[in-house]
Amino acid sequence: MAAPIDFYFDFSSPYGYLAAQKIDALAAKHGRTVDWHPVLLGVIFKETGMAPLTVIPLKGEYSKIDFARSARFHGVGGFRVPSKFPIASQAPARIVLWLKARDAALATRVAKALLRAYFVDDVDISNPELAAAVAAKEGVEPVAARAAIDDPAAKDALKREVDAALARGVFGSPFVIVDGEPFWGLDRFEQIERWLATGGF
Amino acid sequence: MAAPIDFYFDFSSPYGYLAAQKIDALAAKHGRTVDWHPVLLGVIFKETGMAPLTVIPLKGEYSKIDFARSARFHGVGGFRVPSKFPIASQAPARIVLWLKARDAALATRVAKALLRAYFVDDVDISNPELAAAVAAKEGVEPVAARAAIDDPAAKDALKREVDAALARGVFGSPFVIVDGEPFWGLDRFEQIERWLATGGF
Repeated sequence: MAAPIDFYFDFSSPYGYLAAQKIDALAAKHGRTVDWHPVLLGVIFKETGMAPLTVIPLKGEYSKIDFARSARFHGVGGFRVPSKFPIASQAPARIVLWLKARDAALATRVAKALLRAYFVDDVDISNPELAAAVAAKEGVEPVAARAAIDDPAAKDALKREVDAALARGVFGSPFVIVDGEPFWGLDRFEQIERWLATGGF
Repeated sequence: MAAPIDFYFDFSSPYGYLAAQKIDALAAKHGRTVDWHPVLLGVIFKETGMAPLTVIPLKGEYSKIDFARSARFHGVGGFRVPSKFPIASQAPARIVLWLKARDAALATRVAKALLRAYFVDDVDISNPELAAAVAAKEGVEPVAARAAIDDPAAKDALKREVDAALARGVFGSPFVIVDGEPFWGLDRFEQIERWLATGGF
């Protein structure tokens, strides 16, 4: 079986959310699975000197138009820019990495639920209690989920994940690596599709 | 007849070059014409605090992979990252704006020829003599084309064009405005297509 596709995203990234609605189906169509990697754009931007989209003059205003329009274009219902945006995404990222070491399929389900909570239901998932509550709805034991956020092992796992992402050249969200080939952005999904279908072009 | 589509680009922008191969056909398919606006990303980036793609850590290395892959994906033959890249693009921009005041169709033809000279034939079009020579091949009187680059009226026209672009929120290349709706990037051409076909979505 071919290697999984690596999918890097930040829980605070609207394009990451939109991409998360597409990546599993895209991979499955070509007989691939997806390895979900939550990362922290805040840490990555410190390395690259980049700034969050929304604080950049002109680009910031444009991005709000484009988030919503891209959601409509891709048929992703319910999207809205959350009341508190952007957020620090340590809490959801640590829960997901803690779960991933135990049950990768459950970790992916919880990751999707956390993204949906933030971008559809306007839940502030940077809040540890609220993030743990979302995981609990997916069947995770709530006290353990809450504890994972402050667990040194989960903190270390996230730090290692971000360092590994930087080492592979990840500078944004979503970021996909297929057999070593890097693709940045939801708008590269058509190129990913052709790459998967043809083995490169 | 519906209003023209506004197409903003910098002569030093690879994605601008790729988009320039597509925009006229896309507009014509929907009964539109294109108003070509050369701008200076260097000036625009000073306003927004952004940096040229290629100098950003990680993103710079990625962009070189993505330029070439996107050219192949879109079937644009002959593209290569020029030997001298990026360049200051005042010389080609001023020639085109000087021509545009006289013959808009010729100005667009010369703009395409200048982009091709830079991105396919590796001609340094930041050099006034070389830029004028490219225009001359399209039938422009060479001495006049060379003089236009230093002409205060052409300099003013370019300054006004860049100021007007900033006032409309243009922060990158390519940037397209359709009936007031802004679209940044070649990767938004499918959204532009749907917008033109449906009048908005």
